Amino acid sequence: MVEFQEISPADFFYRNRDIAGFTNPARALYSTVRELVENSLDACESVGILPNIYVRLTHVSGPLDRVAVFKIRVLDNGSGVPEHNIPLAFGKVLYGSKYRLKQTRGAFGLGGKMAILYGQITTNKPVRIVSSTGSSHVYEYVLTVDIRKNEPKILGKKNYENVNNWRGVLVEFYTEGDYYRSSSRILDYLKQTAMVNPYAEIIFVDPRGYLHIFERGVDEMPPAPKETLPHPYGVDVEALKRIIADTKVKSLMEFMTTHFHRVGKATAYKFLSEAGLNPDMNPKKLSQEDIVKLVNHMKNFKGFLPPDASCLSPLGEKLLKAGIEKELKPEFVAVTQRKPSSYSGYPFIVEVGIAYGGSILKPGITLYRFSNKIPLLYDETSDVSWKVLNEMIDWSRYKVEVTIDPVAVIVHICSTKIPYKTVGKEFIADRPEIEHEIINGVRIVARQLMLHLSRKKRVQMERARLEVFSKYLDKLTLFSTRLAGRKKPPDLKPLLAKIARLNLVKEEQNIEEEQFEEPPIIKVKGYEKK
Amino acid sequence: MVEFQEISPADFFYRNRDIAGFTNPARALYSTVRELVENSLDACESVGILPNIYVRLTHVSGPLDRVAVFKIRVLDNGSGVPEHNIPLAFGKVLYGSKYRLKQTRGAFGLGGKMAILYGQITTNKPVRIVSSTGSSHVYEYVLTVDIRKNEPKILGKKNYENVNNWRGVLVEFYTEGDYYRSSSRILDYLKQTAMVNPYAEIIFVDPRGYLHIFERGVDEMPPAPKETLPHPYGVDVEALKRIIADTKVKSLMEFMTTHFHRVGKATAYKFLSEAGLNPDMNPKKLSQEDIVKLVNHMKNFKGFLPPDASCLSPLGEKLLKAGIEKELKPEFVAVTQRKPSSYSGYPFIVEVGIAYGGSILKPGITLYRFSNKIPLLYDETSDVSWKVLNEMIDWSRYKVEVTIDPVAVIVHICSTKIPYKTVGKEFIADRPEIEHEIINGVRIVARQLMLHLSRKKRVQMERARLEVFSKYLDKLTLFSTRLAGRKKPPDLKPLLAKIARLNLVKEEQNIEEEQFEEPPIIKVKGYEKK
Repeated sequence: MVEFQEISPADFFYRNRDIAGFTNPARALYSTVRELVENSLDACESVGILPNIYVRLTHVSGPLDRVAVFKIRVLDNGSGVPEHNIPLAFGKVLYGSKYRLKQTRGAFGLGGKMAILYGQITTNKPVRIVSSTGSSHVYEYVLTVDIRKNEPKILGKKNYENVNNWRGVLVEFYTEGDYYRSSSRILDYLKQTAMVNPYAEIIFVDPRGYLHIFERGVDEMPPAPKETLPHPYGVDVEALKRIIADTKVKSLMEFMTTHFHRVGKATAYKFLSEAGLNPDMNPKKLSQEDIVKLVNHMKNFKGFLPPDASCLSPLGEKLLKAGIEKELKPEFVAVTQRKPSSYSGYPFIVEVGIAYGGSILKPGITLYRFSNKIPLLYDETSDVSWKVLNEMIDWSRYKVEVTIDPVAVIVHICSTKIPYKTVGKEFIADRPEIEHEIINGVRIVARQLMLHLSRKKRVQMERARLEVFSKYLDKLTLFSTRLAGRKKPPDLKPLLAKIARLNLVKEEQNIEEEQFEEPPIIKVKGYEKK
Repeated sequence: MVEFQEISPADFFYRNRDIAGFTNPARALYSTVRELVENSLDACESVGILPNIYVRLTHVSGPLDRVAVFKIRVLDNGSGVPEHNIPLAFGKVLYGSKYRLKQTRGAFGLGGKMAILYGQITTNKPVRIVSSTGSSHVYEYVLTVDIRKNEPKILGKKNYENVNNWRGVLVEFYTEGDYYRSSSRILDYLKQTAMVNPYAEIIFVDPRGYLHIFERGVDEMPPAPKETLPHPYGVDVEALKRIIADTKVKSLMEFMTTHFHRVGKATAYKFLSEAGLNPDMNPKKLSQEDIVKLVNHMKNFKGFLPPDASCLSPLGEKLLKAGIEKELKPEFVAVTQRKPSSYSGYPFIVEVGIAYGGSILKPGITLYRFSNKIPLLYDETSDVSWKVLNEMIDWSRYKVEVTIDPVAVIVHICSTKIPYKTVGKEFIADRPEIEHEIINGVRIVARQLMLHLSRKKRVQMERARLEVFSKYLDKLTLFSTRLAGRKKPPDLKPLLAKIARLNLVKEEQNIEEEQFEEPPIIKVKGYEKK
């Protein structure tokens, strides 16, 4: 006999914590730090505040070189959580602020709660949350999660006068982890986070008491991401039915221009007549068949404007460059921001950087992956960027020796919806549109690296040539002077300088003017219709 | 201002269908077929019936070489779903029969509903379910899913007299898909499913009307998987609290022997005294601290028996071999079943097969991955088996030329909990215990392949040698006879036969007796404590 039962969302993710990145004590500790830091960064960005984030991991009990109990404390200066939302925002799975069409680091509204849940199931201790939105009071809650019911259980509640006008969130709880086996990932994570968030200050106190400070590199923040309307291309039957249920407008004409991204009156009119629908019709009167028809026409109509990326918050070339220089200290760096593009109605922007030499010592091409300003560290070989670098770019065209040259490639993708393939946000699906933009971005910066490498090589050759000249020319002039019966040998310095300068300048001009033939676009298998 | 909202589990998976394998119309159609077939196989296995599964994809509208609408119909002869469970089992996410500690193909209780949901959001049409548990009646429901509420909305309901004592489920709905781009995966999936389920008959009618029959190869089924109790090693605080809340026993002694896997009286007594807990204590009286203490002791106590694999249903060497021979038709095949092992308290068994030549034409090592008798086709390079074959086995030791020899390696893992890294069940995490078993399994079959290849090579050499002999010996004997002044040359045949036989037999004996030095176990990084 087959038995059926219902489980709550909290229970589902408790049972399947592997898929959210809570696989073992080492990975769980990494995910805990990561999810809390990302929530803090999002909270700061939503109110346009330069983030100050403080993370402390205190060792509580157990062996430090294996699985032990830690206390984690994360403090930020972000938006804060309104008092009445605190219990649910921290104690109910699938309740949150991330379920909107907006670029945020968090994608599933799940990570922070998974961290709290994991702490609870391993240590049986509650979480403490202190927050204020900058109002007259600061609120404190102590709670546990009732996993079977997916409900917070409030154990304590206090409030204080907000004397310093503080705004932000403090989260504190106990959790089991393996710091010994996760410390390098945690530090890599914070370092790379600092690279793409150079306007954030992150302070980390590790379980041994060491202080790691990731200082703010720039005082400028990219514009905050904005919420946006859905693009008609990405709308399915369910989404359309929801909009119809909620709308207050009375005609299809108004419906199209009010609820969809970049649909003006002219476009709406053209679209509706092509779809054979009366612009004056009340959207609530649409039959089930009409709804399917409308969705199909939305997917196939050619007249919609592409999604506008003004709702996105990319880093910008300046900040990306500053971040790379600050964290990798390379000899050479080049960055590029691609034009906005879209997939399935979601806008996205790809930014690519390349860095060479300097403090980068590791031979070969090291990939740094970022999405919505967070680093991705696990499962690299499943990621679209890895595929591009290793299977679609012919590095020899760019004079890069893939096993020798110390090169770092930085790929940042920002979008209102990043197509992650796992809840743990480890890697990005190879959507053809995104792949295409990454290829082109890498080509642009790789070409600049090639220029640098050629120039460097010629300078080296020139230097070697001059060395040979200055070594033997001295003697040669001496002998020649003697042979010619003269007394004073001619001054060689201006000659050497002239040769050197001339050659270098010439070389540089040649390189700049050279027309690089664009390698052919590699045919992408399974390319979806645009 | 940050806005908060709650979403239902159905809504969560609707928004994030990428993580369940419903990324695009091609992938979605593959996932739809796959999830429904797996549910059917599970339903048959749960009642020990040889599966007869019928799948039909009918083309409804749109271009057949791009995104189109299809009707899918899946019919099985499994357990059936009791009438009162039908609406929730097909119309409510996180409601199902897969939330128990038992080896099933389905791991999340989600796939079938995702398929139905996807059909609904792309075509706006309801699903029809017909089922009977073999009782006097057959029940039919027509329903849609209210995604925001996570509830079935019943549109129609009928019942018929069950004149033929039919048992099983028929599911039928409309969905959008790209058959052109998914047909090869779907057929691969069905072919590989037939390989590890040789006792199943699967009939597939594709959208062009072609019939694909995967015939039953054997009439014998492996023993059905059984539900099992949790092993103390895998229990966390939450699990323990649930057992305490539900238990009816009055003492810790009874508690340990009743609710945990393989804990007898002697073990329980030894364990409780080591944990410093009174065996007569009522478990409901345990304090919060006691609970944590109990869990920690459970993780560290050395006296528990390892999990027993009798609840698992591996294929067995005979069925695995039959499946490989039936689907790959190789020249050589070797299989092995590893002894049961466990990770985090979950028992698992690894079965490995190797096949060479015959109908296998592709040069190099092709990996076929299976878990709980389902094939895994996507994201191969992230899977633990891929890692083993490509990074941990030195094939040259086994005389296999990795770029030339046509070799197939089949890895099947069965467990009460497969550590998938995605909800889409694409690949398995590299748990060290599992990795270890795969390595050893591959080594065993690779050694057998080596014997086969050596023997084959020697036979070839012998044949070449005999050819040379028979070519020149003839003439030589003729000349020798003449030189010796004799008339009749000696008969060479017995001589040739003797040399040939002797050599071949000798070689074979040598090979069998040769002691193969076991390659050293490769050190596994980050090996977790046992």
